[in-house]
Amino acid sequence: MTAGMKFGFEVLHKDVRTGARRGVLHTAHGDVPTPVFMPVGTAGAVKAMPNGFLEALEARIILGNTYHLYLRPGHERIERLGGLHSFMAWNGAILTDSGGYQVFSHRELRSISEEGVAFRSHLDGSRNFFTPEKVVDIQCALGSDVAMVLDDCTAYPAGHIDAEASMELSARWAKKCRDHWRKQDDGRRALFGIVQGSVYPDLRKRSAEALNQLDFTGMAIGGLSVGEPKDVMYEIVECTAPLLPWDRPRYLMGVGTPEDLVRAVAMGIDMFDCVLPTRNARNGCLFTSQGKILIKNAVYAEDPGPLDPNCACPTCRRYSRAYLRHLFLSGEHLSAVYNTLHNLTFYLDMMQKIRHSIELDFFGNWLEQMEKGLS
Amino acid sequence: MTAGMKFGFEVLHKDVRTGARRGVLHTAHGDVPTPVFMPVGTAGAVKAMPNGFLEALEARIILGNTYHLYLRPGHERIERLGGLHSFMAWNGAILTDSGGYQVFSHRELRSISEEGVAFRSHLDGSRNFFTPEKVVDIQCALGSDVAMVLDDCTAYPAGHIDAEASMELSARWAKKCRDHWRKQDDGRRALFGIVQGSVYPDLRKRSAEALNQLDFTGMAIGGLSVGEPKDVMYEIVECTAPLLPWDRPRYLMGVGTPEDLVRAVAMGIDMFDCVLPTRNARNGCLFTSQGKILIKNAVYAEDPGPLDPNCACPTCRRYSRAYLRHLFLSGEHLSAVYNTLHNLTFYLDMMQKIRHSIELDFFGNWLEQMEKGLS
Repeated sequence: MTAGMKFGFEVLHKDVRTGARRGVLHTAHGDVPTPVFMPVGTAGAVKAMPNGFLEALEARIILGNTYHLYLRPGHERIERLGGLHSFMAWNGAILTDSGGYQVFSHRELRSISEEGVAFRSHLDGSRNFFTPEKVVDIQCALGSDVAMVLDDCTAYPAGHIDAEASMELSARWAKKCRDHWRKQDDGRRALFGIVQGSVYPDLRKRSAEALNQLDFTGMAIGGLSVGEPKDVMYEIVECTAPLLPWDRPRYLMGVGTPEDLVRAVAMGIDMFDCVLPTRNARNGCLFTSQGKILIKNAVYAEDPGPLDPNCACPTCRRYSRAYLRHLFLSGEHLSAVYNTLHNLTFYLDMMQKIRHSIELDFFGNWLEQMEKGLS
Repeated sequence: MTAGMKFGFEVLHKDVRTGARRGVLHTAHGDVPTPVFMPVGTAGAVKAMPNGFLEALEARIILGNTYHLYLRPGHERIERLGGLHSFMAWNGAILTDSGGYQVFSHRELRSISEEGVAFRSHLDGSRNFFTPEKVVDIQCALGSDVAMVLDDCTAYPAGHIDAEASMELSARWAKKCRDHWRKQDDGRRALFGIVQGSVYPDLRKRSAEALNQLDFTGMAIGGLSVGEPKDVMYEIVECTAPLLPWDRPRYLMGVGTPEDLVRAVAMGIDMFDCVLPTRNARNGCLFTSQGKILIKNAVYAEDPGPLDPNCACPTCRRYSRAYLRHLFLSGEHLSAVYNTLHNLTFYLDMMQKIRHSIELDFFGNWLEQMEKGLS
């Protein structure tokens, strides 16, 4: 890796039986093997995970939330402090979302127009306005390795007419973002487009076609995991992924469960983010090779075993279920720390296994096993 | 260290100019160099400090609170899980207090009689009763390396008559604790007596004499840092410490600030505990070689420097004041983690310097410098 390194993506191997791809993102902050899960670092920190723990897990890329960082401590402050990598002392890669989804989630506080989205801060009620150009500028100030276009995340359910209008607005914003990006682009960072279109395959197709013409470095599928049934989500990913350029990274935003990740990889998705492993950890819900564990349950009160006998994370190597239950019930900060360490290990280990199985052309068998197990 | 190892204490070196002693506690869970500061692990965990961080800091002994562990998860449960060391996966030494002080702090919920102290749980209001014998049994169930006698911590201010009655009750309880302890003592653990007597030198003297006759393995000074002026506290430590057996460890309970520790070491104290570094850390108050820092202050908003340029802790090596302020204001768990790591490093580094300076007969000079700096 050199300071002048260009952002890039390579597909290293295509699985023989599924759409899965084994690839690598080249960034100015190191190479990132794909398929990859990006831990969510909302406010410039992956909650309850010291950076050193992330490094020990070999996390190579994390996500930052533009909306949160813009409101606190402010992108200009972060820029003066040397950018987000320097500010949070993280030397790996960073992807920032555009803030569109966060504004979308605070529905009662926002209003959308052709120019952009007006919203009130959830912190202090102050009025703010995001334009496509502004979210590009904010992300450039943050210095993220991957920036995202501003999009209008269509609510679920939405009628075809509303979804179409929303998708078209997103496409117009995407063009504005790209044009503004090109003024300052030095090739070291990437801007990704975001396909919208709710649950309508025809709209997804039109969205993908419009964005493909804008020649983004990578493409995301947005507007899923917002309340639609699982099978609908899978259907949309399955029909959208093949419409995205083969030689560019494909990012499924905000998804999902371990099962979702495996299935979406089979459909050709390369990148994921989700708050599930970190948020669930703080709520005492742990992923294990034997299924989910709610650590507060009385059954664990005197259980001397590890969360997951098949897990080699420091939490499982050192602490018992009984102790982790005690920390959770006592409201100790360490409960969040140890639980997050475990859940992220579970996710990143799974992605590692996925990558290896693709390399070995064994991913299809693995997927079959999983689907049998789930049926 | 062997499984059958006896608890012991040695004074290795006496400072030439002050009462300071450089010693070592031998425990079944390793040797502990003294003077030592014991991080407080109230509920079976030093708050926000992963055990691995404590080990990296070379913490050799921590404190557990009998009152808290008795209420949750319960000493019998901990015993069934192999004792407190096993439960919390801590292989260093553990000292447990007797619960007397915690019951004392929840004044409105307790009532004292000759037999012991009745109190209500601060968790669920349930009625409980501690006798001298019961707190010995609880601590034996926990398996702590150092147990403390049940004492009545005299409130401040207290008249001489009340303080005398309270001190005498503590002395009678101490004898009951010792007698009960001897029934199960195998020499691998220690029971310490606690000198009481409020701010009255004559009562402190009588308390020390009474307890000396009971031949405890170590002796503590309790009932200080409960609201009395600093100079009164120092006066009481100074007149009490020399009354304690030379060849036994001396423990000043619940004290204190960095300055308090240095001064008390000069008076011949070997062991300390205090919530100050850990609690202050969670409140954003950091100890540095240049004085205290309140990290929320606006002056640090864009300060790229470390908390303390003279500190080598992971927090100071990696994160800026600006970032630590941001984590604190954002209510991130990591704020507590990084701040606690720093404050405990500050305390344990200071104790290390104290031990070295005693070895080198330089401690008196160091104390003089400090007192000049403070005057």
